[in-house]
Amino acid sequence: MSILVLGTVALDTVKTPFGIRRHMLGGSAVHFAMAARLFANVNLVAIIGRDFPKKYIDFLHQKGIILTSLIRGKGRTFKWEGQYQGDLNAALTLNTELGVLSAFRPSVSEKQRRIKHIFLANVDPDIQRHLLENMHSPRLVGLDSMNYWINHKRKELLRLLKRVNIYVANDQEARVLSGETNLIKAARCLYNYGPRMILIKKGEHGVLFFSDKFIFSLPGYPTEKVIDPTGAGDTFAGGFMGYLTKVKRINEISIKKAIVYGTVAASFNVEDFGLNKTGHLVLKDLENRIAEFRKRVLF
Amino acid sequence: MSILVLGTVALDTVKTPFGIRRHMLGGSAVHFAMAARLFANVNLVAIIGRDFPKKYIDFLHQKGIILTSLIRGKGRTFKWEGQYQGDLNAALTLNTELGVLSAFRPSVSEKQRRIKHIFLANVDPDIQRHLLENMHSPRLVGLDSMNYWINHKRKELLRLLKRVNIYVANDQEARVLSGETNLIKAARCLYNYGPRMILIKKGEHGVLFFSDKFIFSLPGYPTEKVIDPTGAGDTFAGGFMGYLTKVKRINEISIKKAIVYGTVAASFNVEDFGLNKTGHLVLKDLENRIAEFRKRVLF
Repeated sequence: MSILVLGTVALDTVKTPFGIRRHMLGGSAVHFAMAARLFANVNLVAIIGRDFPKKYIDFLHQKGIILTSLIRGKGRTFKWEGQYQGDLNAALTLNTELGVLSAFRPSVSEKQRRIKHIFLANVDPDIQRHLLENMHSPRLVGLDSMNYWINHKRKELLRLLKRVNIYVANDQEARVLSGETNLIKAARCLYNYGPRMILIKKGEHGVLFFSDKFIFSLPGYPTEKVIDPTGAGDTFAGGFMGYLTKVKRINEISIKKAIVYGTVAASFNVEDFGLNKTGHLVLKDLENRIAEFRKRVLF
Repeated sequence: MSILVLGTVALDTVKTPFGIRRHMLGGSAVHFAMAARLFANVNLVAIIGRDFPKKYIDFLHQKGIILTSLIRGKGRTFKWEGQYQGDLNAALTLNTELGVLSAFRPSVSEKQRRIKHIFLANVDPDIQRHLLENMHSPRLVGLDSMNYWINHKRKELLRLLKRVNIYVANDQEARVLSGETNLIKAARCLYNYGPRMILIKKGEHGVLFFSDKFIFSLPGYPTEKVIDPTGAGDTFAGGFMGYLTKVKRINEISIKKAIVYGTVAASFNVEDFGLNKTGHLVLKDLENRIAEFRKRVLF
């Protein structure tokens, strides 16, 4: 099975109490891909600049990511610089350099247009819509966004929400977009905007899923090893969407399992800088951790 | 079986987006008792003032709470006034009037001294220690505290921690007392202070349990009905400790079950002001909600 992800490929500089790493391979589409590749052929739709290191291209190739729609623009690669303090739950953005991202117009091959599973990771809602309109007949479309677009392109985002199946938001975004503080009320409101499945990510506190069929709450994997949470949300989405490409039916059982896969994938992501962990995962790693997770959360 | 709880009996005034209620029956020992009474005979050790309404005494009697060690001091009853905003997760204390609490010295009857299950709810650690020293041979002792004592009577609190089995703290208290931001690291540190079981309450995000045998993480009951969270932590403790009075063995299975009972008890508490919900609970209500909870958190 194939999955297509639209998002960013970035060079991340991250400062944490555990040290600093400069210009690591990152971005929403890359973090998503690292988890989704364990379940499906990942087609990455993104833009990089002239300064993008060849070693990162090689790395993505090696991981089996399909790069036919990774275009190289004139200019510099999107760069993000952030800092984590204290409990490492919230990133403080120190600097953002859009570079080629500001002129990004995704295009996909005729073959890719037939892919059924699509994830629109966080970029401008206009770019997300543009890509979605190019797809033939998607089976399952997930969408992520961020506060910047909620505040600056609310209308466009709301229009897009009517056309996707799954909206993935963090708790803060869910509250801002819905105007509700209680997360179930927020989820119900977002559900009424269109998507039949709402996933609210709560960082270390896990995930809340809402649909008209059921509500599901799962804590994060309890771990004391948190080095760099950058990309944990996208890794979660990659595990979640990736798993769903493999199931016959999207129902309560498969959705819960997908959330569990996403959760443990994200738990690996935070254990080291950048892709140091998720870049080397195999499916068996997730399965082993799910067994441990069961002990720690089931009763 | 019997359980003894030392704590406060208060007159609470609470302001929330849903309204204001003045001088409701509250306090740590009372909220604890409302849940614990579903499992055991609750002996309440606390102080009230001359202004304490007879209707509240009658109410506690009616609920089967044993009041032989509820003493009436010269002065006014302890009063707390607080406000909740936004997601109702954090209380803003507007006013505290200690009244008789400042001169409280608990005393228990000879019969009560033989009670095996004890909960030292949040009062001055010197008072907690005083009571504990009066008990004959406790089987299980739980302790709660608050930031004020962590900051002002740290030494006394640390000395006390060596003598209890279970320490119940909220996430903020756990972080302050341990100096660790990651909650598992914090729990490990608190464990090293003495108690063999650490329970960290995370409000709407549920509970983290830590021991040398196992770690357990449980989300809160997902609900959109949050009216007044005052006393939710004590209600949790009451359900947790209450359930454990009834089990033969305190092991992984019974501890997990106790945490589930505490969690659903707390979920009722937040659904209305004061004791409006927990004052009318029967065990069957908890069991019905546990069935619903299973659907929402198990996979």
